[in-house]
Amino acid sequence: MGRRRRIRPSTAEIVVVGNEVLNGEVLDTNSNWLARQLYFLGLDLRRVTAVRDDLKEIAGAIREALRRRTEWIITTGGLGPTHDDMTLEAVALATNRKTVLNPEALEMLRERYARLYEMGVVKESELTPSRLKMAMLPRGAKALRNRAGSAPGSLLRYKGSRIISLPGVPRELKDIFVNEVAPLIRTEARRVVRYVAGLFVKGVPESSMAPVLRELAAERPRLYVKSHPKGMEEGVSLVEVVVHSEGQDPEEVRREVESAIGVLEERLSAFQPAELRRMSMEEVLGGGE
Amino acid sequence: MGRRRRIRPSTAEIVVVGNEVLNGEVLDTNSNWLARQLYFLGLDLRRVTAVRDDLKEIAGAIREALRRRTEWIITTGGLGPTHDDMTLEAVALATNRKTVLNPEALEMLRERYARLYEMGVVKESELTPSRLKMAMLPRGAKALRNRAGSAPGSLLRYKGSRIISLPGVPRELKDIFVNEVAPLIRTEARRVVRYVAGLFVKGVPESSMAPVLRELAAERPRLYVKSHPKGMEEGVSLVEVVVHSEGQDPEEVRREVESAIGVLEERLSAFQPAELRRMSMEEVLGGGE
Repeated sequence: MGRRRRIRPSTAEIVVVGNEVLNGEVLDTNSNWLARQLYFLGLDLRRVTAVRDDLKEIAGAIREALRRRTEWIITTGGLGPTHDDMTLEAVALATNRKTVLNPEALEMLRERYARLYEMGVVKESELTPSRLKMAMLPRGAKALRNRAGSAPGSLLRYKGSRIISLPGVPRELKDIFVNEVAPLIRTEARRVVRYVAGLFVKGVPESSMAPVLRELAAERPRLYVKSHPKGMEEGVSLVEVVVHSEGQDPEEVRREVESAIGVLEERLSAFQPAELRRMSMEEVLGGGE
Repeated sequence: MGRRRRIRPSTAEIVVVGNEVLNGEVLDTNSNWLARQLYFLGLDLRRVTAVRDDLKEIAGAIREALRRRTEWIITTGGLGPTHDDMTLEAVALATNRKTVLNPEALEMLRERYARLYEMGVVKESELTPSRLKMAMLPRGAKALRNRAGSAPGSLLRYKGSRIISLPGVPRELKDIFVNEVAPLIRTEARRVVRYVAGLFVKGVPESSMAPVLRELAAERPRLYVKSHPKGMEEGVSLVEVVVHSEGQDPEEVRREVESAIGVLEERLSAFQPAELRRMSMEEVLGGGE
């Protein structure tokens, strides 16, 4: 085996913008979806921050992420045509610049509203002030095409960071991420390969298995071992134990995890009456949405 | 009418702890549930921050909330018996103290494991080191009874803030919040009464209604007016417009919102072919879970 040099993946943060999230009106599923994309792309998502539709609050959260030298900062929400859509202004404020009419974004909006007019969705194809507002990007930003809606995304490179702003509508966010952001991450980010698998354990309370997990974690410091208590069923504890690994070689990373799951299986089956069931990568990560 | 004195509600923040949230493995529904509780209790939730199971990261997020003089800081997750449950240690670190064996928490755990032993869930009622770990609270904290699981919650008063730590298992979090935290908020927090209603609008794109919303917001600065685009259906735009208000008098707050919805209804029906449907408070807030 021997020691390998470890690559530290590029860091990322998500800044979620919207009163509706902090009011409890809307369950934010965007950051969970993005988190999973970043996990599989091999980045290191360090923090998710949700703030209100308030210029200073948004700019503050972005500045903090910049201060932590976060390499990929992704904002969600606040790109639309209304007065309280102010994320791009906040990005500009946080990076000491103004927003300006972005020619690429303008062209995207022209095309978009011409098409919507043809389809009869809007009554005039003209770019009203509310529509033009969506073409105001931070000076120096690149517009990211939105194939699923109107507001273009924005990419601003600032010192060592990239600030990527995506709309809050999930379909639009996903469209821009998949078509514009993921390819950029694949080209520019330091990435790792990841693997995860799990054991679903019936009959062993978390507090009883804790020493076994601590021991395994100590023996295999490259792995991340974690238990998720899932409550009880007819007086029997249910716990999901997951093992993560990351590295450069997909086969090796997979082997490490599967071997650790095997060891866990052996040690936890000593608890009677434990009932164990292996969980695939898909099953472990299926709990998200 | 005249001007009334406005009460500024107590501020709150949520700190979500857990790698599983940042990996995308688990969709965090706890903060949405809490956000809704705080909204109806009349507090001002300013920020939700999700961080990894890392002592410095967690302590850092708590320190930042303290620095913002947040009055109610609620942490979720990381209270369990395993080595990576470290939220209470982080609370201690952020407030310059140690964790100590808390006698109330110890008693709660004794009762709990005696009961689990009787029920046959655990094989010994003894408080093993992993179980005792859950009784280690920041010095000066009060234990909060968990009727739905093992790990007690924790309440630490620190300068003008209260740091409340709840388990990540949703059933346990809800139990402690409802029985221990909500009564405390009702007694100790500055609170407002809130009301919200909405209009579901078919056939008017968000960019076309933006000027109407801006105008209404300018006419009625006490209200918060916001549009949520919901995509398109057969080439027709769907937008949800919501109007929030807060104050001291429930009847007045309701009246303000309903009157604004009436004005909106009138102005938006000028757009042809707009189709409008009123949304109740329950319907507006139903999108969460």
